Amino acid sequence: MAAQGVTPRSEDYARWYTDVVKMADLAENAPVRGCMIIKPYGYELWENIKNALDSRFKATGHRNAYFPLLIPMGFIEKEAEHVEGFAPELAVVTHGGGKELEEPLVVRPTSETVIGHAFSDWIQSYRDLPLLINQWCNIVRWEKRPRLFLRTTEFLWQEGHTAHATKEEAIEETLRMLDVYADMAINECAIPVIKGLKSQQEKFAGAVDSYSIEGMMGNSWALQSGTSHFLGENFAKAFGIQYLDEENELQYAWTTSWGVSTRMVGGVIMAHGDDQGLRLPPRIAPIQVVITPIWKTAEDEELVFRNAKQVENLLREVGVRVHLDSREGLSPGFKFNDWEMRGVPVRLEIGPRDVESQSVMAARRDVPGKDGKQAIPVDGLATQIPALLDDIQQSMLDAATAFRDARLHEAATYDELKEQVADGWSLIWHCGTPECEDRIKEETKASSRCFPLELNEEWNPAGQKCVVCGKPAFGKAWFARAY
Amino acid sequence: MAAQGVTPRSEDYARWYTDVVKMADLAENAPVRGCMIIKPYGYELWENIKNALDSRFKATGHRNAYFPLLIPMGFIEKEAEHVEGFAPELAVVTHGGGKELEEPLVVRPTSETVIGHAFSDWIQSYRDLPLLINQWCNIVRWEKRPRLFLRTTEFLWQEGHTAHATKEEAIEETLRMLDVYADMAINECAIPVIKGLKSQQEKFAGAVDSYSIEGMMGNSWALQSGTSHFLGENFAKAFGIQYLDEENELQYAWTTSWGVSTRMVGGVIMAHGDDQGLRLPPRIAPIQVVITPIWKTAEDEELVFRNAKQVENLLREVGVRVHLDSREGLSPGFKFNDWEMRGVPVRLEIGPRDVESQSVMAARRDVPGKDGKQAIPVDGLATQIPALLDDIQQSMLDAATAFRDARLHEAATYDELKEQVADGWSLIWHCGTPECEDRIKEETKASSRCFPLELNEEWNPAGQKCVVCGKPAFGKAWFARAY
Repeated sequence: MAAQGVTPRSEDYARWYTDVVKMADLAENAPVRGCMIIKPYGYELWENIKNALDSRFKATGHRNAYFPLLIPMGFIEKEAEHVEGFAPELAVVTHGGGKELEEPLVVRPTSETVIGHAFSDWIQSYRDLPLLINQWCNIVRWEKRPRLFLRTTEFLWQEGHTAHATKEEAIEETLRMLDVYADMAINECAIPVIKGLKSQQEKFAGAVDSYSIEGMMGNSWALQSGTSHFLGENFAKAFGIQYLDEENELQYAWTTSWGVSTRMVGGVIMAHGDDQGLRLPPRIAPIQVVITPIWKTAEDEELVFRNAKQVENLLREVGVRVHLDSREGLSPGFKFNDWEMRGVPVRLEIGPRDVESQSVMAARRDVPGKDGKQAIPVDGLATQIPALLDDIQQSMLDAATAFRDARLHEAATYDELKEQVADGWSLIWHCGTPECEDRIKEETKASSRCFPLELNEEWNPAGQKCVVCGKPAFGKAWFARAY
Repeated sequence: MAAQGVTPRSEDYARWYTDVVKMADLAENAPVRGCMIIKPYGYELWENIKNALDSRFKATGHRNAYFPLLIPMGFIEKEAEHVEGFAPELAVVTHGGGKELEEPLVVRPTSETVIGHAFSDWIQSYRDLPLLINQWCNIVRWEKRPRLFLRTTEFLWQEGHTAHATKEEAIEETLRMLDVYADMAINECAIPVIKGLKSQQEKFAGAVDSYSIEGMMGNSWALQSGTSHFLGENFAKAFGIQYLDEENELQYAWTTSWGVSTRMVGGVIMAHGDDQGLRLPPRIAPIQVVITPIWKTAEDEELVFRNAKQVENLLREVGVRVHLDSREGLSPGFKFNDWEMRGVPVRLEIGPRDVESQSVMAARRDVPGKDGKQAIPVDGLATQIPALLDDIQQSMLDAATAFRDARLHEAATYDELKEQVADGWSLIWHCGTPECEDRIKEETKASSRCFPLELNEEWNPAGQKCVVCGKPAFGKAWFARAY
């Protein structure tokens, strides 16, 4: 039975998602259509994802900086594919300081252009390379069919921008950051994403090649959860990013860009949530452990709260993000449901009997009912709770991986693909042409997700033909319904 | 003698500021006039200020959230004083997604309106209060006379927004956050700010009362470095923020807002910088210790670098933000000047002789020449460097306080005020009326900074008259030239 106010997933997955975002207090629609308000609990989840990424960026030698929100319209037009891709989504500032502007300004839809402009000034010689920059900021892309976290007109993200002396180094960086994203998704968000190359039609507007991590959601649809782009010399040529090499010759730099956004929060909700609400991996959960005191008499209340407070302090000291639910006038049952909805990984119940036996009752969010419950002695909490959180993190990843693997199929014919994408992903030998992709999408609603790196030893392998159109295959590609 | 490329402060303070921002690689102008690019070193400085604030906000019970960048024009118009104050500074989006919008959208100049709208929904009963929210974001206010960090069309900041059941609680919160700001400025940025009440003319558009922290810069001018506003019921009435009290009666909430921006970075530059460049307080310095290896022969180079690397690891392990300058082809003298320009608090020199004697030569940025130098044995670094950084932090605060105190004067006549504001701040009994403020500003260029809380025991004290106009005094006010 689904929690009150939540549509069961099996009934209507889209409504389930909207219900959970609302009931778990993560976000809501803003007054301006397509924009969102990220509420504290949702923002704290994003902060944890953000911190997990930021430390990985710094460990790989990147430095944060900040570039302006407002970009001259002329900048966007300098890279031909770029403007074609982004023009329909732009928000345009035409008035500032009480006057009409001479040149309209664009609210950044991404920052390749303005950062390219800066890089052309910052980079003079090979000694200035590689230049490894990241920016945390907000982005605006007009969205016709908005959904909280997944597709919003304004969203938060990071965008990495790097410049390199050689093509090889730039490709290496593109793949390194794809690995960083996969590491974050797998080990922090417990989502076993698949790394792959996007098709030419699905790549970033202005890139030579785009790579993505693709996660499987609870309805078996795919979510592109992060992208890393090899931009070749495209933006270097559009913005004049040139350097003197060791032989004192002028060369164009090779650039990359890569981004992960608040969309990732939507991925966490859909990869793990159930009919009782959110289920959060401990490493990114704003609250890892919630303590719910249980009492009947005033005497018990004092006793139970004194103990609950001690347990709270004890756990906080060992670095656990713990919250004591001291709300009055709410039954334990109401509180249990409320914290289940919010996906807190561990609930500790403390009643008079637990105080007497110097133990607490721990309930796992990821294992329903009695199987997920165990009594833990108070003097063992400092070691057993962190271990329990680690175990939950691993179990959630294992469960998501098992769920995914059961829905990954390989198709030798187009008919097989059609069947497989009804409730899973289908891997086929594929030509990678837009025409063939469009046909598959129209006929099956499944889109090309990526050419997975692990399953493709070489591109354009001799003798392999596209399962759908019979043209020479570029490689093996995953097809799936997607957000 | 000033560093190369830097105008001496005594010659032209404004040019000195611009030179240092550029030479220390902190920021530069963006393609759009009035906007800025914050370069990595400047952004890391901001990140440290940000972290120092964020931990204080969380410790005082506030939670971060995120509200939209784009606000319907109609929202801004709901609070009469608010729209009057902000209308001339707005950037307006008139087109989105390829179409002209039905209602123009404003790029947020501050978020009282859109947050007020959300609060009216979030707050239903007294149980929902107090509501303590903070947001980290970017802001756009059209700026006619931009200066990097100090006044830019786009800037980064945090804005706190809280709602309370009573007037008293809201005022208490306003003053609590003013204290948090002062604590951050004094103990992190080593700027001995003065807390005070802004005059009615200088308050935030829409506030009942505004408070600020005011710091003294190196040319004795004042910089408003943070503000905290008691908004009364103004925004609650404009946006319908109401709650049912314990007697089940509908009441308006009392709200506050408070902000600190990237302007604070400008304050740090001007409060501490000298003709050699930046001087950064250790607690917010991106790099606290820089190691410059010195060698002549290849044999020495290897020896010196091995030792320098050991010292780097040793300091990193005890939590010091340390950087080893391993750039090739640059003389030690060049490197010394470069790190002086960037204001790194401690430079460690390691040459062959130091390796032999198992010591390093430490030079303080805040004490020039031989007085600031001392040899420290390698096996004492782990304790002595953190202690040295603490000492520098305190010395910088002491020096800034002594500098300030020597320039704080009290005036009994208007003539005295005129003399005092030429190179300092002047405290007078003041009426607080806009007419009198305007006259003083026109005649002396000094503006009303604040009515300092520490020096005013009561407002409208009996028998005291304004030193300038003779009307009854509201209190003692600081007047000074200001940014």
